Amino acid sequence: MVVRAGARLRAAVLGTGLIGGSVLLRLHAAGLDVIGWDPDEATRGQARALGVPTADLLADAVADRDVVFLGGPLPTLPATLVEVAGLTGEDCLLTDVGSTKAELAAFAAAQGLTHRFVPGHPMAGTDRAGLSAAVPDLFAGAAWVLCPAWDGLAAFRRLTALITEVFAARVVPMAADRHDRVVAFASHVPHLLAGALAGAAERSALRDAVLTLAAGSFRDGTRVAGTPPQRTTNMLRGNRAEVLAALAEVTGYLDELSRALRDDEPELLTARYAEAAAARAALTDRPHAEQDLSFPLAGAPADEVAWLGELGAAGGHLSDCRVGGDVVSYRAHLPRSA
Amino acid sequence: MVVRAGARLRAAVLGTGLIGGSVLLRLHAAGLDVIGWDPDEATRGQARALGVPTADLLADAVADRDVVFLGGPLPTLPATLVEVAGLTGEDCLLTDVGSTKAELAAFAAAQGLTHRFVPGHPMAGTDRAGLSAAVPDLFAGAAWVLCPAWDGLAAFRRLTALITEVFAARVVPMAADRHDRVVAFASHVPHLLAGALAGAAERSALRDAVLTLAAGSFRDGTRVAGTPPQRTTNMLRGNRAEVLAALAEVTGYLDELSRALRDDEPELLTARYAEAAAARAALTDRPHAEQDLSFPLAGAPADEVAWLGELGAAGGHLSDCRVGGDVVSYRAHLPRSA
Repeated sequence: MVVRAGARLRAAVLGTGLIGGSVLLRLHAAGLDVIGWDPDEATRGQARALGVPTADLLADAVADRDVVFLGGPLPTLPATLVEVAGLTGEDCLLTDVGSTKAELAAFAAAQGLTHRFVPGHPMAGTDRAGLSAAVPDLFAGAAWVLCPAWDGLAAFRRLTALITEVFAARVVPMAADRHDRVVAFASHVPHLLAGALAGAAERSALRDAVLTLAAGSFRDGTRVAGTPPQRTTNMLRGNRAEVLAALAEVTGYLDELSRALRDDEPELLTARYAEAAAARAALTDRPHAEQDLSFPLAGAPADEVAWLGELGAAGGHLSDCRVGGDVVSYRAHLPRSA
Repeated sequence: MVVRAGARLRAAVLGTGLIGGSVLLRLHAAGLDVIGWDPDEATRGQARALGVPTADLLADAVADRDVVFLGGPLPTLPATLVEVAGLTGEDCLLTDVGSTKAELAAFAAAQGLTHRFVPGHPMAGTDRAGLSAAVPDLFAGAAWVLCPAWDGLAAFRRLTALITEVFAARVVPMAADRHDRVVAFASHVPHLLAGALAGAAERSALRDAVLTLAAGSFRDGTRVAGTPPQRTTNMLRGNRAEVLAALAEVTGYLDELSRALRDDEPELLTARYAEAAAARAALTDRPHAEQDLSFPLAGAPADEVAWLGELGAAGGHLSDCRVGGDVVSYRAHLPRSA
């Protein structure tokens, strides 16, 4: 799949900060014909210093490419998508690495780009920023969400094959709106809690002593509060309604814990913590069952999209996708508890 | 200091779970004459299998000891303290490793034990429990709070010397009530936030997908929710008022963040995150200035206690304590920003 008609796949990555830069470095390390571009001249110089081909102009980067990854700040993605779509042919696959999906997916649909734009979200990162923090193996073993559309299945399959093969990521197929509800819990609310803990400590009269006594729980609980503030703001604004809804569920649970503590109900408090510990146990040790499934290419796209959506909703992922003859074959992994 | 009049210091550790067990292993590895005791027979067998002397009876463990460390569940500490005080001589130094200090310190004062009981709290741990999770170097570089009293300075100095020398811990001198307010922020509220995040995820209809997409922020933010629930309940109940007060400060900050998000005020949201990031930056990189200070042993104890209290409140710690001639000499480390 990486090889196209005897030649190397031609890829471009636009916006080469932490995430886009890690995509770029991995594609380059994997031997693809890849070229990067970033609006920041210093970043382009950094990429060149790393030996990675880099264009000065976006138009030069995307010319004659098979696949283009759109990175950069979330608010810039719609405009970049339109620009790149206009500069590339109908066969050129487009995807993005933004942290929210529903708005951009709806925008792409309104632009008539569903057949070749696959909304994506690689779920990895660090609290640092920029190409200097990028590493080619950032996504190995990480979840990488792709949003399949019934009229974009060919593009989804091509991209799934590329990402499982080149990045060794777990491709999680998921509808864009579900993705946004899930990441509100899995990433955005944790950023709010970390910000609140670190911010309240910074403001406290006890600040200096708190930092000195900060144990693992405080260090872990505030880690993502070290993320560049503007990036966190963009991420949260891009998913506002879902973040506030998930936050209400988490603060509801927090109220239950604090009420049990205030009313001195130790059995209730312990029971609530046991419930929480169950999620934690599943997070660290959840066995998966492997399943191979094929769909006829001439079949109803809705069946394939429905199966993919259910797989992601159940906590499953894909590790392989092959198109051969008249079928597409997926290798799926599903939590045994599901 | 570890050597007493030509002989090895004789120590006992009561309650040899994660924390007490790690104290026991370190004292043993350092070559002290140390003996452990735990109410659980299996734990005693485990300790013996590790080659560490272990008594079947508490009375045998503490007989003729120079220093006794009290571990075990928080609610058991007052009764154990009274029992051990009755079984040991006036020269026997007593300390504990419990996670809250004000109640036990007040109890010890009421029992007339201030001159030889030094409330302590080594700030390290894991989300596992029991002697099998214990490791001798758990406290290397960790903060270890000791609460100095004006009529217990000799005991405080002896214990500071022992802990800095044997455990390579940072001894943070701090009044018991301040300790409890600080750890409410530095440890207990983080446990509440982690429990709320993990518990709400466990209860959510999106649970399986959340666990699959769980990124670093969710994993870090829920880690201590994997702590044994009963231990967390004990810890929070032992510091209820301070925990609820600190929680109110943190939820106040959380409200500011969520309001800025709901009202779509990106500049305000970014400013709040910048404030939070400052605490995080100080946590990972805070240079310290070294200072040596001596007090005459015949001086006013209040001066020494006041200096020690200010040092801990300012985020400082001790790395050495020596009594020689008629002075006590401390080596202190203070954050440069303070």
